[in-house]
Amino acid sequence: MSKLGFIGLGVMGSPMAEHLLVGGHQLFVHTRSRVPDSLIVGGAKVCANGKAVAENSELIFTMLPDTPDVAAVLFARDGVADGLSPGKLVIDMSSISPLETKRFAERIYSFGSDYLDAPVSGGQVGAQAATLTIMVGGNQQPFERARPFFELMGRHITLVGKNGDGQMCKVANQIIVALTIEAVGEALLLAAKAGADPAKIKQALMGGFASSRILEVHGERMLKRNFDPGFRIELHQKDLSLALSTARQIGVSLPNTSTCQELFNSCSAHGGKAWDHSGMVRALETLANFEIGQTA
Amino acid sequence: MSKLGFIGLGVMGSPMAEHLLVGGHQLFVHTRSRVPDSLIVGGAKVCANGKAVAENSELIFTMLPDTPDVAAVLFARDGVADGLSPGKLVIDMSSISPLETKRFAERIYSFGSDYLDAPVSGGQVGAQAATLTIMVGGNQQPFERARPFFELMGRHITLVGKNGDGQMCKVANQIIVALTIEAVGEALLLAAKAGADPAKIKQALMGGFASSRILEVHGERMLKRNFDPGFRIELHQKDLSLALSTARQIGVSLPNTSTCQELFNSCSAHGGKAWDHSGMVRALETLANFEIGQTA
Repeated sequence: MSKLGFIGLGVMGSPMAEHLLVGGHQLFVHTRSRVPDSLIVGGAKVCANGKAVAENSELIFTMLPDTPDVAAVLFARDGVADGLSPGKLVIDMSSISPLETKRFAERIYSFGSDYLDAPVSGGQVGAQAATLTIMVGGNQQPFERARPFFELMGRHITLVGKNGDGQMCKVANQIIVALTIEAVGEALLLAAKAGADPAKIKQALMGGFASSRILEVHGERMLKRNFDPGFRIELHQKDLSLALSTARQIGVSLPNTSTCQELFNSCSAHGGKAWDHSGMVRALETLANFEIGQTA
Repeated sequence: MSKLGFIGLGVMGSPMAEHLLVGGHQLFVHTRSRVPDSLIVGGAKVCANGKAVAENSELIFTMLPDTPDVAAVLFARDGVADGLSPGKLVIDMSSISPLETKRFAERIYSFGSDYLDAPVSGGQVGAQAATLTIMVGGNQQPFERARPFFELMGRHITLVGKNGDGQMCKVANQIIVALTIEAVGEALLLAAKAGADPAKIKQALMGGFASSRILEVHGERMLKRNFDPGFRIELHQKDLSLALSTARQIGVSLPNTSTCQELFNSCSAHGGKAWDHSGMVRALETLANFEIGQTA
């Protein structure tokens, strides 16, 4: 039994913390929102702030919405840093800036503690089923120390490199996913408006080099007009924002990531913040004044 | 044994015609270039023009570079149309305009002959190995009539819809392939310039929703700096040109296809017409003043 801290008990953090508790560990939690009853019943101790969590725990997990939230939880007054002592390990599982992550890690090291960035993919479903993909940045030794706990929450666990590289891997994943959704959208919409059956086109393409899980799953959503999330557009907007701001800072041009962000922005303007990200095709459909479903 | 015509004996057409000949059929050929010795030795009859090919053949295959070439071979003086009579079947296996294809089919029907569009993917390697993917547009009955001959040339043979839909399927395929290559390029380049190991990023991504054959194969080419074709950029430029002109004619906006074409244009400006299409990443690298290989 280890003493674990968990800060951030939202739709992702709550089930993840629950898995650690069920795994037999002592849990110290803090969150801005309400602590779920199941955690309290299960014996999790609620702490007044991040400092108290850090003082009581060997490993401290954070699962927060965005970069400034992580900065505040770690480094604001009575935050995690104030409760650190040598030998502790901070593990940020939020999806945040790769570049800020490198700075956060340096600051945590200065307390004699260790740091891993370990963002996840798989969403709420993956968090509940403990099937998350976990992309880790940091050193081998703390990775091995954290691995048994990662294995309570996820399935595909990879140490991709040093601090920040876990976050970079997540950003790369979100770029490819968004741009492949858009590619499938352009292809199926053009075919549909030209009078072809997009379902037959999709089926024929699945045999060749255009095949992907995105074509299979998100292409099917476009055909069936099922845009219930899934993964919400507003979350993907946050991820592409990380990609674009990182690119701007280090001097990389991401023309199609930029366009995809604009298409997401257009979806939001049409009330689509909470659509599944495959709903990006609707922005293309608006431009074309034609819906894929019209030929189905 | 059937009497077959084959017009266009380039790098694709020659091995395709060869497979028909080896399959035991009588072949009547015409080409602007030299007829390969193997076809002549095999017994193929060289005709002076498309008209003579059509007069001698039950089925007439064409494999030509672009839309105007097909128009000329079919409908210029002494072309295929001049040799048609009721019951013949014209099969265009070139990759050309989906919209023009519908018009070509109507004109061929007016002679009492039938028409299939049957573009392929798989390239020169697939043509030689008789493993082409064949995407067919037209009616069921001529499709069944042509199927035994398609099976001598390819492996994945799908009737995707009516005339033009085969060409549309090929265009959709080429849109998705180009845009997925670009997506992989943006993701790996950003990660590499941020200091991550792009090979490890690629490996981690292959487990999740970002995985695709493009990430596997073309991502590997970007890491290994192997831009020998494969599929040449200038051919993919032709395909995206078909996509963009079709889109303009029917009123569809293809923002990322347009950007990918510009990136291919930039590659050509740097001497890259004959690079493999994964070399598109070099245009992104030029913009970023950084090569993925610098971190490898």
